[in-house]
Amino acid sequence: MALALSLGRRGQGNAWPNPAVGCVIVKDGALVGRGWTQPGGRPHAETLALSRAGERARGATAYVTLEPCSHHGQTPPCAEALIHAGIARVVVAVGDTDTRVSGRGFEMLRKAGVEVVTGVRAEEAERDLQGFLRVAGGGRPFVTLKLAASFDGRIATATGESQWITGPQARRLVHGMRARHDAVMVGAGTARKDDPSLTVRGLGVARQPARVVVSRRLDLPLLGNLARTAKDVPVWICHGRDADHERLQAWTGLGAKLLPCGISQAQIDPADMLVQLGKAGLTRIFCEGGSALAASLLGAEAVDEIVGFSAGFSIGAEGLPAIGAMGLERLAAAERFELVEARPVGPDLMHRWRKIAG
Amino acid sequence: MALALSLGRRGQGNAWPNPAVGCVIVKDGALVGRGWTQPGGRPHAETLALSRAGERARGATAYVTLEPCSHHGQTPPCAEALIHAGIARVVVAVGDTDTRVSGRGFEMLRKAGVEVVTGVRAEEAERDLQGFLRVAGGGRPFVTLKLAASFDGRIATATGESQWITGPQARRLVHGMRARHDAVMVGAGTARKDDPSLTVRGLGVARQPARVVVSRRLDLPLLGNLARTAKDVPVWICHGRDADHERLQAWTGLGAKLLPCGISQAQIDPADMLVQLGKAGLTRIFCEGGSALAASLLGAEAVDEIVGFSAGFSIGAEGLPAIGAMGLERLAAAERFELVEARPVGPDLMHRWRKIAG
Repeated sequence: MALALSLGRRGQGNAWPNPAVGCVIVKDGALVGRGWTQPGGRPHAETLALSRAGERARGATAYVTLEPCSHHGQTPPCAEALIHAGIARVVVAVGDTDTRVSGRGFEMLRKAGVEVVTGVRAEEAERDLQGFLRVAGGGRPFVTLKLAASFDGRIATATGESQWITGPQARRLVHGMRARHDAVMVGAGTARKDDPSLTVRGLGVARQPARVVVSRRLDLPLLGNLARTAKDVPVWICHGRDADHERLQAWTGLGAKLLPCGISQAQIDPADMLVQLGKAGLTRIFCEGGSALAASLLGAEAVDEIVGFSAGFSIGAEGLPAIGAMGLERLAAAERFELVEARPVGPDLMHRWRKIAG
Repeated sequence: MALALSLGRRGQGNAWPNPAVGCVIVKDGALVGRGWTQPGGRPHAETLALSRAGERARGATAYVTLEPCSHHGQTPPCAEALIHAGIARVVVAVGDTDTRVSGRGFEMLRKAGVEVVTGVRAEEAERDLQGFLRVAGGGRPFVTLKLAASFDGRIATATGESQWITGPQARRLVHGMRARHDAVMVGAGTARKDDPSLTVRGLGVARQPARVVVSRRLDLPLLGNLARTAKDVPVWICHGRDADHERLQAWTGLGAKLLPCGISQAQIDPADMLVQLGKAGLTRIFCEGGSALAASLLGAEAVDEIVGFSAGFSIGAEGLPAIGAMGLERLAAAERFELVEARPVGPDLMHRWRKIAG
């Protein structure tokens, strides 16, 4: 199962709207097939592993990170495929929350006489598949918040200088992180100020993550990098329903996908926005700021993981803060994260924190 | 020498105004004596190690982290004591910068026919003894800046709530760090707001570090913890020469030591203040903020080490920043620190950074 989980992770960022599943087929102690969800979500992990195994699948055990699907979608159900291939035993980490599958995959297998074991390394699989599992259940995608700041949590000087706070090693690592998410998200301020392209560079990825910009008023530069490349790599804009009509047309014309979202306290409502992004197929979102969007997501308790990069210098209090106003009055009310990892990356310190379940 | 260095560190925070030296005496491959500078700076490391070694010192090798003293101070010179004990060879990490010693200790030993080897593990010893070596040469003490903040670098909420941002494990570690410094320093704002006692608690230390408060106008509470305990544990106040006369008298009456300092840009001049603290005997200072003092020391490039504690939650931009305004305009002008250590301490992340020599 550990191998299946690690294979599954290979599909992260590439499989959406499908889950990034891993599958390993073992016969008489020997590995006879393996697979993971392919770019675009098909073929499924099981299909690939079964085709590799061929006749050796008969009587074998299949380790799958997620309950095999039971419904006819764009591919025939994997539960059926496992049965037809003669698999004797299916070991699964976690059940599906998709109402079209939830428990029916197991049922189909058991009815056909296949032995089913569930809950193996479930915690790990739940973490890997969290975004998909939540979205399939009508919830929001998995959200990683990246904050690259000076030692004192600033992302730009008072005069707006922000390139570069962290070193090339950290920036390269960020490209790898982008690649393992379905979409990269920034706020309108960052889109205007940095004119980012938000693509994954230098890693030869199969599929670029979608680029999501949160802009209530749609006041984004029509001649910037995002506008220029919207036809090549998806640009999605989450805007308020009151956004200017001409701008809506202009961005539609440029090839952007527009998602009207609810407003809360004069800003895009983060909870509504994320559910909509989930409905649109995203399961894992990598948010890169700026301060207002970071504060909004944190305030809505909508961040699952924080990746911090701290540089070895201070900018001082005039600098732009990494996290904007949050309206927090009591320390006890702050949502707490637990430290998962801390290590040097070039001259910078990388630290990962995970939402404390509860 | 590694052992001598580690013994030397035991005296850190206790030996001032003397250096925290370590000494090991080895005869025929066996350790026959060891010592480190005792609380208050006497006996010296060599004296202690020689008295332990007794007659076995004859023909032995002494490993000492700092050049043995050659002048008659409150104790007879250690160089002389080593000669009289019959030590055949003295291995030293680093030479003294005190003009009363500098090179003369080596000279005295060599003249008496003792073999002298220098520069062994010099870098490490220089780091440990940096404060003393600089002060002895007319410079400033070693300064450690501690910053315990939320993930986004805030030390209090907008309403002033600051207890506790970090957990008990981090606070305990801070007490250990205080104990390894000659003095703990805070700004006037912190002294007023937190009413701290700044003592080392729960560790059974032989000698409390001095407590230094930086307050240009001496507007500190006369009924607070520091005032109340100034007769038991030293309180030193760095103030402007224009401070109110009555307050000066009140604090003198309470038993505080008053250090008038130069003013620069309407604040105590950090460079002048530190040199004065060095002249008053301090070699290692542990600064615990607040934001204005932290910014002032960093701006003067007067911080040798930063110890950061980051908690797993955000306070947001309305919170009080750990580092105040620095007037930094260009990123390239920021002084850079290198990461030395990063590890979890309870629920918090501890990260240590060292000034990049240059």
